[in-house]
Amino acid sequence: MSATQSDQSPADQFAAQTDQALAETYGDRDGLVAAYDAVRAHTETLAAPLSPEDQTVQSMPDVSPTKWHRAHVTWFFETFLLSDNEPGFAPFQDRYWFLFNSYYETLGPRYARPDRGLITRPGAHEVGDYRGNVDGRVRDLLTRADEETLRRVLPTVELGFHHEQQHQELLLMDIKHVLSRNPLEPVYAGRPAALLGSTTPGPLEHADPGPMGWVDVEGGLVEVGHEGGGFCFDNELPRHRTWLEPYRLADRLVTNGEWLEFMRDGGYERHGLWLSDGWGRVKADGWRAPFYWTERDGEWFEHTLHGTWPVDPTLPVAHVSFYEADAYATWAGRRLPSEAEWEHAVVVDGQGERVSGNLADTTTWHPRPAAPAVPGGPRLRQVHGDCWEWTSSAYHAYPGFHPPEGAIGEYNGKFMSSQMVLRGGCALTPPGHARTTYRNFFPHSARWALSGVRLADGGEPRR
Amino acid sequence: MSATQSDQSPADQFAAQTDQALAETYGDRDGLVAAYDAVRAHTETLAAPLSPEDQTVQSMPDVSPTKWHRAHVTWFFETFLLSDNEPGFAPFQDRYWFLFNSYYETLGPRYARPDRGLITRPGAHEVGDYRGNVDGRVRDLLTRADEETLRRVLPTVELGFHHEQQHQELLLMDIKHVLSRNPLEPVYAGRPAALLGSTTPGPLEHADPGPMGWVDVEGGLVEVGHEGGGFCFDNELPRHRTWLEPYRLADRLVTNGEWLEFMRDGGYERHGLWLSDGWGRVKADGWRAPFYWTERDGEWFEHTLHGTWPVDPTLPVAHVSFYEADAYATWAGRRLPSEAEWEHAVVVDGQGERVSGNLADTTTWHPRPAAPAVPGGPRLRQVHGDCWEWTSSAYHAYPGFHPPEGAIGEYNGKFMSSQMVLRGGCALTPPGHARTTYRNFFPHSARWALSGVRLADGGEPRR
Amino acid sequence: MSATQSDQSPADQFAAQTDQALAETYGDRDGLVAAYDAVRAHTETLAAPLSPEDQTVQSMPDVSPTKWHRAHVTWFFETFLLSDNEPGFAPFQDRYWFLFNSYYETLGPRYARPDRGLITRPGAHEVGDYRGNVDGRVRDLLTRADEETLRRVLPTVELGFHHEQQHQELLLMDIKHVLSRNPLEPVYAGRPAALLGSTTPGPLEHADPGPMGWVDVEGGLVEVGHEGGGFCFDNELPRHRTWLEPYRLADRLVTNGEWLEFMRDGGYERHGLWLSDGWGRVKADGWRAPFYWTERDGEWFEHTLHGTWPVDPTLPVAHVSFYEADAYATWAGRRLPSEAEWEHAVVVDGQGERVSGNLADTTTWHPRPAAPAVPGGPRLRQVHGDCWEWTSSAYHAYPGFHPPEGAIGEYNGKFMSSQMVLRGGCALTPPGHARTTYRNFFPHSARWALSGVRLADGGEPRR
Amino acid sequence: MSATQSDQSPADQFAAQTDQALAETYGDRDGLVAAYDAVRAHTETLAAPLSPEDQTVQSMPDVSPTKWHRAHVTWFFETFLLSDNEPGFAPFQDRYWFLFNSYYETLGPRYARPDRGLITRPGAHEVGDYRGNVDGRVRDLLTRADEETLRRVLPTVELGFHHEQQHQELLLMDIKHVLSRNPLEPVYAGRPAALLGSTTPGPLEHADPGPMGWVDVEGGLVEVGHEGGGFCFDNELPRHRTWLEPYRLADRLVTNGEWLEFMRDGGYERHGLWLSDGWGRVKADGWRAPFYWTERDGEWFEHTLHGTWPVDPTLPVAHVSFYEADAYATWAGRRLPSEAEWEHAVVVDGQGERVSGNLADTTTWHPRPAAPAVPGGPRLRQVHGDCWEWTSSAYHAYPGFHPPEGAIGEYNGKFMSSQMVLRGGCALTPPGHARTTYRNFFPHSARWALSGVRLADGGEPRR
Repeated sequence: MSATQSDQSPADQFAAQTDQALAETYGDRDGLVAAYDAVRAHTETLAAPLSPEDQTVQSMPDVSPTKWHRAHVTWFFETFLLSDNEPGFAPFQDRYWFLFNSYYETLGPRYARPDRGLITRPGAHEVGDYRGNVDGRVRDLLTRADEETLRRVLPTVELGFHHEQQHQELLLMDIKHVLSRNPLEPVYAGRPAALLGSTTPGPLEHADPGPMGWVDVEGGLVEVGHEGGGFCFDNELPRHRTWLEPYRLADRLVTNGEWLEFMRDGGYERHGLWLSDGWGRVKADGWRAPFYWTERDGEWFEHTLHGTWPVDPTLPVAHVSFYEADAYATWAGRRLPSEAEWEHAVVVDGQGERVSGNLADTTTWHPRPAAPAVPGGPRLRQVHGDCWEWTSSAYHAYPGFHPPEGAIGEYNGKFMSSQMVLRGGCALTPPGHARTTYRNFFPHSARWALSGVRLADGGEPRR
Repeated sequence: MSATQSDQSPADQFAAQTDQALAETYGDRDGLVAAYDAVRAHTETLAAPLSPEDQTVQSMPDVSPTKWHRAHVTWFFETFLLSDNEPGFAPFQDRYWFLFNSYYETLGPRYARPDRGLITRPGAHEVGDYRGNVDGRVRDLLTRADEETLRRVLPTVELGFHHEQQHQELLLMDIKHVLSRNPLEPVYAGRPAALLGSTTPGPLEHADPGPMGWVDVEGGLVEVGHEGGGFCFDNELPRHRTWLEPYRLADRLVTNGEWLEFMRDGGYERHGLWLSDGWGRVKADGWRAPFYWTERDGEWFEHTLHGTWPVDPTLPVAHVSFYEADAYATWAGRRLPSEAEWEHAVVVDGQGERVSGNLADTTTWHPRPAAPAVPGGPRLRQVHGDCWEWTSSAYHAYPGFHPPEGAIGEYNGKFMSSQMVLRGGCALTPPGHARTTYRNFFPHSARWALSGVRLADGGEPRR
Repeated sequence: MSATQSDQSPADQFAAQTDQALAETYGDRDGLVAAYDAVRAHTETLAAPLSPEDQTVQSMPDVSPTKWHRAHVTWFFETFLLSDNEPGFAPFQDRYWFLFNSYYETLGPRYARPDRGLITRPGAHEVGDYRGNVDGRVRDLLTRADEETLRRVLPTVELGFHHEQQHQELLLMDIKHVLSRNPLEPVYAGRPAALLGSTTPGPLEHADPGPMGWVDVEGGLVEVGHEGGGFCFDNELPRHRTWLEPYRLADRLVTNGEWLEFMRDGGYERHGLWLSDGWGRVKADGWRAPFYWTERDGEWFEHTLHGTWPVDPTLPVAHVSFYEADAYATWAGRRLPSEAEWEHAVVVDGQGERVSGNLADTTTWHPRPAAPAVPGGPRLRQVHGDCWEWTSSAYHAYPGFHPPEGAIGEYNGKFMSSQMVLRGGCALTPPGHARTTYRNFFPHSARWALSGVRLADGGEPRR
Repeated sequence: MSATQSDQSPADQFAAQTDQALAETYGDRDGLVAAYDAVRAHTETLAAPLSPEDQTVQSMPDVSPTKWHRAHVTWFFETFLLSDNEPGFAPFQDRYWFLFNSYYETLGPRYARPDRGLITRPGAHEVGDYRGNVDGRVRDLLTRADEETLRRVLPTVELGFHHEQQHQELLLMDIKHVLSRNPLEPVYAGRPAALLGSTTPGPLEHADPGPMGWVDVEGGLVEVGHEGGGFCFDNELPRHRTWLEPYRLADRLVTNGEWLEFMRDGGYERHGLWLSDGWGRVKADGWRAPFYWTERDGEWFEHTLHGTWPVDPTLPVAHVSFYEADAYATWAGRRLPSEAEWEHAVVVDGQGERVSGNLADTTTWHPRPAAPAVPGGPRLRQVHGDCWEWTSSAYHAYPGFHPPEGAIGEYNGKFMSSQMVLRGGCALTPPGHARTTYRNFFPHSARWALSGVRLADGGEPRR
């Protein structure tokens, strides 16, 4: 990090990094417009298999309807990009300002989140009209704006890209829940080659990923947080020092097979394995298996976006809460990694800022079995692209964090309480979206997100 | 009533009356099939203005989605008519048995009512396929069945007609609520001539219905309940004697103008006007006007299926709960009629079993102003076809009531607690559906039904 | 009823009757003061076995603490009698006005009912001081008031007597619930002779009351409601005519033994026996036996104020809801009586206005087995003094009912919705309190009240 | 830390430290018995001003009744000390095992926490009997046990001391809430000299504590956690290294006067100051001032254990939630300290492990104004004995933490989620109980605990 940057506030630093990254990334205006079109088109591709009815329903307060996602990310560009920069700006539809604001208090009253599924109009088709209209206006702006304006709005444009990508992932998590409530067991997408077993729809027969291996990490006074040189969210800043005792990380995620052992050993019945609040949820909500598992005649099945199939022991366990992840680790005589341990280990394992895993496969909407490590390559497997990995770290601000001014300051900072950090990425994460320094977060009891478990060990004081 | 009938059980009596009525009503098989087609087509006509999204949403537990109504009434014919009588019966779709059962415990587990809005599939179009399939099979059955079978199934067929008509009314009440939750203020149907004021969208200018008049009724030992000679529901039987002291009934419904006076006089703020449970709802739910009224800049507006317009003082007040109706009557120094008083008055007023009011107008989905009474004709106005009228009678079984055997016995009897009887019919009631002996019922606090108020007076012991 | 009374409003009629009754009943002022002292002393006798801690707790919102009852009935005399009539009236303690108002909205804000158990002070002893203070002032008033004042306040004094008696009954129902929550199984009173079996604490061995007999009643145009000539509550007025078809009433209450048959026959598992709302409670609240029954190693035990003992098949079933009573009647092929049927039958059975049953036994706080009918005497047994008997009548105003003016008008009228009438009296009813025309009322699902079941049959139209 | 200890597990280390500390602390058996008697007597002293009724009530689920506290701490000695070590052990009362278990799942079913206020018996007096019985048996055990037994039970005895002290603090926090619900405004204790203003009950006139000063701390690679040499809870172990950038801490707590400025500046109305969950509580629960403040005619009053008085601007603000503390810090342009920052600062300020503040004053049950710093002494004021201080640290396990085996392992570890750490101590903390390394914890929204705010600043990456 250069000396000149050391005087910058985190917000300035955030802006400067973003600016430079954009120039390097997109080259010229056409490249930027093409990137915009690609992000926007991906959303529509994800929604394409869904009927107007599918796109309308909110199956629980945490879930948003598909057409709401499609409209909200459009509203984001209209509100944060066009409203301040488009000459003669007028909203596409006055009331959309109210309807499609997610949580920005600064922007005034908004439609209640738990009621998003009550909105039948605009319909899925009208939301398409809204998207088309805003797309045209954004393209115009990016094409015709003078240099200074372009420079000024670039951070917002790229934030809009990453914002839309976050909602692409959520759209899939959410529709998975919506479809799970239907006794007709509808399918989002056919089963892809990556998950095809020898018999269909019988149990999958994947190569066993083998026993869990361990990767030792030295620790010490290390740096974590985003380094600059590309987009990041404000919550990844500022990069700072922290102390880590020597520790080690499992080289793959916990599998369904291992989770079945936990269940057979009374994992959901032994209070001593659980945090008190977690045990309360086990009893109150009747948890006895991961979220999308159901038992039929003594056999466990898993609901997925590709249909419902027998639980495959070679796949990573998915859709478990922090409480379950923590109880599993206790049962296994291990623990969850802190977010600093996770990030530092991935960096020293040679995976740096890069995104790996299954992210390039856009037909597989479920985590895949751990592939063998490439000799001489990184030893940590399934780091990106299978399951978001629970850490032992509460989601708090990094030292020196200050949110940006204005409504956009509500993007991340105000959620920094009562949630836990997850790291990595998952099978639903759009290509190019995740980073090693990326901090995802969910409440302790959340299960509808595509979350899994990587174990850690060590890290105790040695003196 | 003939001597031979006096030995019959109420259930037998119910069957015999139904049988005779059908023969008289439909003449031959073609007539019956034509009646079936007409009832079924009316449902689709009502759903036609609604998008797939509109048809999917459940805006509160009391409301069912349009496509659920369309499917459930179809399920009713499939379950109660076809399953026992169609040769080689097989259900259109196995899981529909589970999905579209409303409340028949006898038929096994069913999908939870509050979750009806979570079902995205079958979509509106697939429900249409289901309807078409069942329609063809019902027509086949009615056309090809031998005489004895036809005689046997006729009561079920006609129950199916009236069942579907009940859901036609509910479909409209329900979609009215769904659309009311949308800040875009969508409209179900354009404003019809019957409700057009001189300026649009300004206040309507209807002829003032004039002051409330009173119709005196002698009372004494009277008979109430259905007489035979046409279809009725089981809860209208048996016809029986009851004692009424002399009383009188208002000749029209309470108007919005009169309700505004009640509001201006502190109607929603004076506990002394209210039943204790009603006052509890006023405080807990913040009632300060009828259900679909909203105040903007000091003026009151009413949400209707034709759009939102300024409250018209000449229209009957609509969408008030029993508690509000009772409080209004107390404020006015009157009371609500008992259901026996209501029924007997309509009969002695010369309206007999016949259906009057606005029922023939199928483009107006809102109560209309009271028209002047026809000289020499009935003096009670707005008896059928404007608002269901709250009575002071709890919904209980008539003396000697016994529900039919089997699942169909759940149709009415099991709801005979904690609800109040409403009489008449409303602007959403399909033509030919209501009767003078018809007993509708809703909980004391229900407001989303199209309910209004007719006052009564007298009826005290005079000796 | 005399001709002169026919011009009186029900409120005047109520006052006149009360006035006359008092003169006849108490003779002179000393008699009135003695009656006051007797009522007041009985409350303290009932509270005597209870510790300060026992008197403080509210085990559910329906229950009030003992010391609250003791204070509230005192507040009633202070508020309705002293505040308007005592020269130089000043309240004993300003804030008691707020604390001990039960539900009189007219008197201003009041302490929230569900929070009555949060009030540690005044303690039980201080409530005793409050009682003593008000007692002295009431005695003064009754002794020194001039004739006109005395005449004027007499209705209020006697209403205060009956009000306090109602709370004596509630105090016992409530403390029964409080003690039932304690795993130490505390006892309110030792087992009295009337309930002693041959072995203690083994099962009781009472004489079997024998099979249920039936008492036929002619019906016709009958009169119900209070006749005058003694105290009654406003809700028992006006006396009025009603029509009853011929019917019959069981000559005793349903026993625990009969209830066990109902349970063994799947009474709590067969939806077809239940009203829909009742079945909802069975499922939601897990009802499978009367309220105070618990099963231990396959045997049923009953919690009573005398301790917990094995269910005695000869005792009347107690603490069942309206829903359970109705389901039982359906199972038995009978029905519950209407309140008019109940009242008329008791009158024609020769029990008139008089109070019978176990009311004079003030050491037995539980219903007793039905004693044999006295030859030549009334044939209906257990009419008063064992269990309040559920009727099929919703609690509504009698025709022509008008509540009194002022706060006292809130006494009964505002509760006339969503409750069912119970008739008779129970083992906890104070001597002299119940009447044949007495209308008690509880919500359909209430089980903590001492309620039981008497069956009816017939009453169907015969023409 | 000695070399020999470095091989010990944290649990062994915990035991060894405790053992040594006891020997040093108590000298001989008489000393130990005297210490036991002192702790036990202090509980009874605290309960002495409370009536049986006061001791019985649970005003919200977080609160426990006084007599429950008195019994539970006794149960702790009976269960963890006597049951395994007393010859011929038999419990004082079988069912107390069930009634007075707080949260130890290992020990079997227990009485539900929210129902603690429903238990009228044992009464306050009977709880006294229980205490006396256990006290005698504990004294016997401590006096007669052989050396090895004594050594073995000593850690449990001292844990019992500190456990009882925790409940002494909770007893006071809880009864403060109970008394606050009473409109009679009862007082726990008269106002002590330390809080007497010039006029009573007018505003207090204390010396202004002056503007907030700041204490700079260097940071670096520091050690936190308990060092050994005295009792500590398991959650204070193991001592470990962590990295701190340079920072500074306010030299006193935030005052009521400063909080009033925050309120006047719209502190409770500006969403931008709040974490999202905190803002949700502000709106849902109507927060507009600290927990025990009420407004009367425009002036703010504070409920305390000494009565209700006008808010004194010189006293530290008390009874604010984490969300409020965090919002205040944001408003002030500062932040809350991490728990490591807090602990390290107190140590380098020269206050070491020692307890300071107002802890020796056992007549003052409210925080006092900040006294001037002693020249040459510690610069951080009000560190112990006024308000527990919210930190920015989630309550998680220290690296290498392992809870002890058995039921006692449930003491702290299972609560390590969804709560925030508070440091210091408060005016209700018993003398000798708090430590610099002590980790208290409450949920983010807790307000009934005696919690306050100390600001921090700096700590950002500097490179």
